[in-house]
Amino acid sequence: MALISPSRRLRRTPFSDGVEAAGVSAYTVYNHMLLPTVFASVEEDYRHLKSAVQVWDVACERQVEVRGPDAGKLVQMLSPRDLRGMLPGQCYYLPMVDETGGMLNDPVAVKLAEDRWWISIADSDLLFWVKGIAHGYRLDVLIDEPDVSPLAVQGPLADELMARVFGDGVRGIRFFRFGHFDFMGRDMVIARSGYSKQGGFEIYVEGSDMGMPLWHALMEAGRDLDVRAGCPNGIERVEGGLLSYGNDMTRENTPHEAGLGRFCNTATAIGCIGRDALLRVVKDGPVKQVRGIEIETDRLPRCDRAWQLSDRGKRVGQVTSAAVSPDFGCGVAIGMVRMTHWDEGTEVTVETQDGTFPARVRENFWI
Amino acid sequence: MALISPSRRLRRTPFSDGVEAAGVSAYTVYNHMLLPTVFASVEEDYRHLKSAVQVWDVACERQVEVRGPDAGKLVQMLSPRDLRGMLPGQCYYLPMVDETGGMLNDPVAVKLAEDRWWISIADSDLLFWVKGIAHGYRLDVLIDEPDVSPLAVQGPLADELMARVFGDGVRGIRFFRFGHFDFMGRDMVIARSGYSKQGGFEIYVEGSDMGMPLWHALMEAGRDLDVRAGCPNGIERVEGGLLSYGNDMTRENTPHEAGLGRFCNTATAIGCIGRDALLRVVKDGPVKQVRGIEIETDRLPRCDRAWQLSDRGKRVGQVTSAAVSPDFGCGVAIGMVRMTHWDEGTEVTVETQDGTFPARVRENFWI
Repeated sequence: MALISPSRRLRRTPFSDGVEAAGVSAYTVYNHMLLPTVFASVEEDYRHLKSAVQVWDVACERQVEVRGPDAGKLVQMLSPRDLRGMLPGQCYYLPMVDETGGMLNDPVAVKLAEDRWWISIADSDLLFWVKGIAHGYRLDVLIDEPDVSPLAVQGPLADELMARVFGDGVRGIRFFRFGHFDFMGRDMVIARSGYSKQGGFEIYVEGSDMGMPLWHALMEAGRDLDVRAGCPNGIERVEGGLLSYGNDMTRENTPHEAGLGRFCNTATAIGCIGRDALLRVVKDGPVKQVRGIEIETDRLPRCDRAWQLSDRGKRVGQVTSAAVSPDFGCGVAIGMVRMTHWDEGTEVTVETQDGTFPARVRENFWI
Repeated sequence: MALISPSRRLRRTPFSDGVEAAGVSAYTVYNHMLLPTVFASVEEDYRHLKSAVQVWDVACERQVEVRGPDAGKLVQMLSPRDLRGMLPGQCYYLPMVDETGGMLNDPVAVKLAEDRWWISIADSDLLFWVKGIAHGYRLDVLIDEPDVSPLAVQGPLADELMARVFGDGVRGIRFFRFGHFDFMGRDMVIARSGYSKQGGFEIYVEGSDMGMPLWHALMEAGRDLDVRAGCPNGIERVEGGLLSYGNDMTRENTPHEAGLGRFCNTATAIGCIGRDALLRVVKDGPVKQVRGIEIETDRLPRCDRAWQLSDRGKRVGQVTSAAVSPDFGCGVAIGMVRMTHWDEGTEVTVETQDGTFPARVRENFWI
């Protein structure tokens, strides 16, 4: 692997000092910001994530703050999910689409109040689209990227660690809900959410100055829990079927192709910019869709490009994320598969830069 | 330095196979794509760039293609530079701003025809803004990212190398003009432009399948010219005062602060979305502006964050790109300096993560 060249353009985070001190060994870049990807090794990080608790610098989940009288109207314009029933205190996973129904991002929207939202984004400059739409439609909103940096606490011991720092009240936060908690006299929004299937929280740290004090407090409080610096894990997130925008779906795909139809209420999401196009998609359904792909192998090259899926030489889809799973003893992958081959158990071939592998389509992930 | 984690999201380019074979040692990420930053070493690459010729994979300069009856109108909405005199065959460096005059990108726009443009972008998803504006204003345009990947040929021997591959006609291309040339039966737009001060060309390679054939043809033709794989050089571009969006200016800055006032005709750029805000800026001029900063040192830490510029403890600006220059025997840097300290020769202190250094403000760069 090559090195990453530091520059101001690849922004550091309020937690970077802690990440470096913990011995980060690799990064990716996400929303023009450094996102750690490996500490000890992907496999060792994976074992630890599944058994203890980790603190993740996910500051790269930048926020698009939308506030003002038209805030709710604007957020509905961005997504085919019906937001009428959403209450302040809730988080919604929202596919966001352009006028053709192509995905622009798959953020978690945090409804702070009727007229104030944080859109916690995946890797694309969604801010530019939101600003363009707000300007073009002359909406009465303010849009900006605030100084808010999420810090995730993930793993089976997450509740215990969080309770030690924020009090037992955090244990009562329900999935995809959030509450307000105090840390050193400052208000923090804490949601039960995160990019793993191990359970945990995301703390929306408002004010960069609070980054390292909170980092240290969590590390200190969790010493006997074997708390460590961690990061979204390339094996665990594939096992869990957690999609990655830019990897597993792009602007080329509709939410339905990405398997996110359950987050779309296209008929009733009135105002959604991509609604006309998606109503068309919904009529017949997509012809390809995201699936789990089980690869028969105990070694894989790096999935740094789309791998074709084929059946007797005919292209039937592609794999976009893959890793070898220690727990399941096979290659685990996320791919987009054509309707002809998307049924459970269909046998396909994965064509990598390093040779081909036999594989099987799964309707569910490894959960 | 840490490693970079490969994933499909950090897109490979049509030239990646050549880049890898040439022994790339570090990357950055730019428009969700890999951009090589170092081959042998930054210093050795620098020497070679200034004396020979290099082929650069700058596919990450993605294109926003705008076509249709409203294409010209839309491009003018994006920039405060007056485009009325621009002819097909010309390239313009265009600051692009939002409704507050904040910079969103600083692309080179390639006017292919009255109704067809390529906007060759710096590191931000300008596509999202352009699509949002076009949709909001109901403009009659098509907007997309085409399969066009620039390959730069830079260095004093660039003309000679290009003439060997494309014929002597390329020698006649004037600065920031382009022509159409044939390669293996395919049309290529070739402009005299590029992100160095050593002279050269950018080839807009249309069709990923042409990437490696062209790469090999250039390497083969330039063997006796000592042609090598190269990349934008972190020392040379600072010496030359070539700004980097995300490093030296961001959405926080106006074009005037970035020293790009000469590319703005705010009074006559009628239709520019940020015009009202910039007319206000132009009245008094900016209170801080980009300058060269000469640092008295022969070693510097990596400029991975903004370094404060101070004068007797008072903050007077910041440095955002810096390197030690072998040719000038000092630290060369780009910074934003307050009006009180921006005159030639003003002495300031640079505060890095690794100690402070005495420095002097320059009105010009090292050219």
